[in-house]
Amino acid sequence: MTLLMSPTEQLTTLGADLRRALDGEFAEVRANARAAFPSQHLHRDPTQDLATARSWVLNRLAELAEAGVLASGVPTNATDPGDPQAAVIAFEMLAHGDLSATIKSGVQLGLFGGAVVNLGTAWHHDTYLADITSLKLLGCYAMTEIGHGSDVFGLETTITYVPETDEFEVHSQTEDATKAYIGNAASHGTMAVVFGQLQVRGRSYGVHAILVPLRDPHGLDLPGIITGDHGGKGGLLGVDNGTIRFERVRVPRRMLLDRYGGVDERGRYSSPIDNPNRRFFTMLATLVRGRICVGAGAGIAARRGLSIATRYALQRRLFPASGHPDGVLLADYLIHQRRLLPLIARSYALGFAQNEVTATLVRVQSGEPVSDEEQRQLETRAAGLKAITTRFANDALQECREACGGAGYLAENQLVGLRADVDIFATFEGDNTVLLQQVAKALLADYAKIWGELDTIGMVQAAARVFGDTVLERTSASVAVERLIATASRQPERATLDDRGWQAWMFTERERHSMESLARRARKAGKGFDALNQLGDHLLFVAKAHLERITLEAFIAGIDACPDAEAKQELERLCSLFALSSISADRAWFGEHGKLSAPRSKAIGAQLNALCARLRPDSLALVEGLGIPAPWLGAAFLDD
Amino acid sequence: MTLLMSPTEQLTTLGADLRRALDGEFAEVRANARAAFPSQHLHRDPTQDLATARSWVLNRLAELAEAGVLASGVPTNATDPGDPQAAVIAFEMLAHGDLSATIKSGVQLGLFGGAVVNLGTAWHHDTYLADITSLKLLGCYAMTEIGHGSDVFGLETTITYVPETDEFEVHSQTEDATKAYIGNAASHGTMAVVFGQLQVRGRSYGVHAILVPLRDPHGLDLPGIITGDHGGKGGLLGVDNGTIRFERVRVPRRMLLDRYGGVDERGRYSSPIDNPNRRFFTMLATLVRGRICVGAGAGIAARRGLSIATRYALQRRLFPASGHPDGVLLADYLIHQRRLLPLIARSYALGFAQNEVTATLVRVQSGEPVSDEEQRQLETRAAGLKAITTRFANDALQECREACGGAGYLAENQLVGLRADVDIFATFEGDNTVLLQQVAKALLADYAKIWGELDTIGMVQAAARVFGDTVLERTSASVAVERLIATASRQPERATLDDRGWQAWMFTERERHSMESLARRARKAGKGFDALNQLGDHLLFVAKAHLERITLEAFIAGIDACPDAEAKQELERLCSLFALSSISADRAWFGEHGKLSAPRSKAIGAQLNALCARLRPDSLALVEGLGIPAPWLGAAFLDD
Repeated sequence: MTLLMSPTEQLTTLGADLRRALDGEFAEVRANARAAFPSQHLHRDPTQDLATARSWVLNRLAELAEAGVLASGVPTNATDPGDPQAAVIAFEMLAHGDLSATIKSGVQLGLFGGAVVNLGTAWHHDTYLADITSLKLLGCYAMTEIGHGSDVFGLETTITYVPETDEFEVHSQTEDATKAYIGNAASHGTMAVVFGQLQVRGRSYGVHAILVPLRDPHGLDLPGIITGDHGGKGGLLGVDNGTIRFERVRVPRRMLLDRYGGVDERGRYSSPIDNPNRRFFTMLATLVRGRICVGAGAGIAARRGLSIATRYALQRRLFPASGHPDGVLLADYLIHQRRLLPLIARSYALGFAQNEVTATLVRVQSGEPVSDEEQRQLETRAAGLKAITTRFANDALQECREACGGAGYLAENQLVGLRADVDIFATFEGDNTVLLQQVAKALLADYAKIWGELDTIGMVQAAARVFGDTVLERTSASVAVERLIATASRQPERATLDDRGWQAWMFTERERHSMESLARRARKAGKGFDALNQLGDHLLFVAKAHLERITLEAFIAGIDACPDAEAKQELERLCSLFALSSISADRAWFGEHGKLSAPRSKAIGAQLNALCARLRPDSLALVEGLGIPAPWLGAAFLDD
Repeated sequence: MTLLMSPTEQLTTLGADLRRALDGEFAEVRANARAAFPSQHLHRDPTQDLATARSWVLNRLAELAEAGVLASGVPTNATDPGDPQAAVIAFEMLAHGDLSATIKSGVQLGLFGGAVVNLGTAWHHDTYLADITSLKLLGCYAMTEIGHGSDVFGLETTITYVPETDEFEVHSQTEDATKAYIGNAASHGTMAVVFGQLQVRGRSYGVHAILVPLRDPHGLDLPGIITGDHGGKGGLLGVDNGTIRFERVRVPRRMLLDRYGGVDERGRYSSPIDNPNRRFFTMLATLVRGRICVGAGAGIAARRGLSIATRYALQRRLFPASGHPDGVLLADYLIHQRRLLPLIARSYALGFAQNEVTATLVRVQSGEPVSDEEQRQLETRAAGLKAITTRFANDALQECREACGGAGYLAENQLVGLRADVDIFATFEGDNTVLLQQVAKALLADYAKIWGELDTIGMVQAAARVFGDTVLERTSASVAVERLIATASRQPERATLDDRGWQAWMFTERERHSMESLARRARKAGKGFDALNQLGDHLLFVAKAHLERITLEAFIAGIDACPDAEAKQELERLCSLFALSSISADRAWFGEHGKLSAPRSKAIGAQLNALCARLRPDSLALVEGLGIPAPWLGAAFLDD
């Protein structure tokens, strides 16, 4: 039995060209992935109860594994280098269907399998990877504890070396040390990668990870293991999240994932990384692919919602009006255009940014030598993009639900399910608020490093005027963008609102100025919790300003790379809609900082309306370009 | 067996005083309602499947009916005047528990029962009301059709008089005429109030309502009735929404709810209201209580979420920091304060506004003569407040969910269930976007009426300067507020940011100026769909500006009425937090229109931070004041 079928889809020329442009350097691999994706059983019956949902999702994973699309890119033994690009694209494809299946695959292959790959060594790879990729061995990624979510450093579970028996003892020291929210823990997982504090001969070596069997072949907890079931959740009902407690569970020494630190047969600890902090962050750095996948998945979910809501708006008629005896098409209301089209534009923008971060991941994980700076920049962007894309997906899906009225609330039209599933994307793989602060702190650290001794208020201000935005990291668009900016920045108030150089200048100024003032305030505030706490909202603003800028630059690079003239022109409009929406949202800030005069600020609204009116006739092509095959949308109310 | 138990609650003094102040003129009746409310079975098991959820909710309604708190205020016969205040307060109380039960009660008593009360006459009252209030007769409010949601005027169902048999024939003329999203339709309803176009002897008299039996005692569809089940939804699983089609169903003539139009035994149509448009809007005006209830219910749901998230933030510790070895309390992060405290402040503000609209409803429905203007203002405010309160509830509950991290996503902690249930509040009883446009159009009509012949650009501008904001309808706070404004408006930039007069002036200016420019643009644009369509975003801005103003004025009146000094001072801070948050959200607009200088605009952020820091130690009292008894919150993660 073959499960392969390609989607039977008729695209407009513009839609096909936009899709190719948005798919960017991954256009071919994505087109092939779409054609090869088993598109039966994309959607789960939304009325399933918990138990049925869980087994449906497990079956779906088996079906995907059988079709060979589940574990793409995940190595199956110690000599297999793996393929990060294939892994990210596979995750994207999974996000075209039931998101519980997507996330459960992420738990199994990205987190559990990924920990074995990245933190383990040859024995672990050869012993477990084949069974992990074939789903014979289902596992958990037991990092988070009830008392420690974002604060991984403070985990309380202990992994204590027992010299007498050459084993490790895994133990939940407190109630707060209970592992929580763990996927596969409530029923299907038979092993877990457990993170805890490694203790050897009374000395603590910080957080390490170890493999611990959880259940016997009958699914019963092994001695010392106590699993719990989180039961109902806001969504993702097909993922069996639960808790795990360890009561002095013993495992053989070799179960420690010892790539970055292990204990030899004589009970001595050693690590290739001497500095414990650096070791910790190197281990955490393996989370980067997961964050990129979560961002990518959220982006796809938003595209599904926008495709559904837009297609509905193109068939649904409301109040009759003069010239519209059968009722005005929902898509023809200006307010409706203002609800959906800027979200579509932002969906494109984030898609281009996602392409760049994926390409960077592939380069960084290619095995070639990578500088610390590149690695760190990748982590910062992956974290930041995850935060803004998951935020966007939640907001966009909610807008789509409401934009479809009561019909949007019916499960059969898919929107509420998508919205409910995506909700937690804002929290898992790094809470968005925490991630954004990390982004800002990373930028602040870079800033301090670059400006070093210059960092006194007067000097930095003066220097910034001179060196301009060299302090800002540049994306691949840099040269082209800098040229655009240079022209526009001379007389910014004279540029048209659609002038890309002016828009880019505004984005750059927002980041530069807010970053400078943050650095100044941080220096003044001094150290300690209270000092930094007072800057919380400023940190968030800087992080978002940074992410908006790299997103715009990615969009500009994406337009540059588009070979088709008509699609290119349409992307230019979408880019303006994205850029002006972003500027409009912060136009108070721009006005307050003398970057935008009142008349110009007031003119943005009319320009947004004009762009929406111009894009409206192409609505269908715009959502075709988002890349979700129409036959896969599965919304009952859409005409065939 | 008595189901009555009062909540065992220990309140801080400040919490108790704030609660009394926020309960306002309804303090005593609400306190009594809380004490009398059957608080067992408040929360439904979130893992219930559809069928179980529906029967659980039906049982819960029976339990509430038995306790005598379900049908409060709903008349049981033709001579019973009913009690609108009791009905609204009862609905609020229901919203403290499972929202499916709340909404199903709203369908049964507010919509179905309400239609019989308001659109029917003595025979209908005497025949059906006792069975409706006792739940012996479960019914539907079959207004919305697949093709006609907000466009009630365009309903396609026909109610045709058949002189031969002295009956009406109810018929779904098209597929689009199918009644949709109807509560109680999927399984429990045995009768429906059906809205359709009344046809008598080939002539159409517009939308009327008629009672139509749906199911036999075995629950099977009667001949000519085809019901359908909407199945899974985004929330409110315990409400059995479905579709109804009518295939030439005959009912006796007396089934027509004929208060505003009926057919006599000789087959002649007559109505106490000659103008068909006026008749239509008079019938629709009966929706006003439903909208007030939906707004009230959404407000309670938001309070529940804010109470849960705040209490969690007061027990949850995160990263350790200097001076905080056990971790910083979540509530002590500035960012967290900025997430929750402005929402709490807005919750108070909307609560005071809700009190006013409820009081107006009681006055208008007291049976005393009411001017058209009062009636119309009530409708406008009920519609507008419904829109902004349901929007607020959705946003606040989502913020609460995310503010509780992964724990917020677990069904046992209540937030995701509340959020999912409240989602549709933004759509039913009037889609928010449509309602806000109606508010703006009503204001525009008033404006045109008041300014009449003066309405040429120059004259209106000049006149507005002279007469100031007399064009704006005033709430009960008017005199006090006008005095405050008069002082502050002389030198607005010199007032402190906490100056209530300045805040009120800003709110008033926002409404006045945007209203004037809307009127100007509307006049210029002329008539027709395209003209008004172009003003869509402007209409929404004006509506929100208006609603923000009446909300602020209600808050000011509420503070005035507060007898306790400490509570009053706290309300002043909350009011500033509400007002400055609202100004901050629109500070771009204020800057663009010369109402706010850049330095002052920039200072608002710091003032918001300062207000949050000042309110933070009182967090517990603030949520106690919101009035949800802690034992009723039902969130598993809260300490006792």
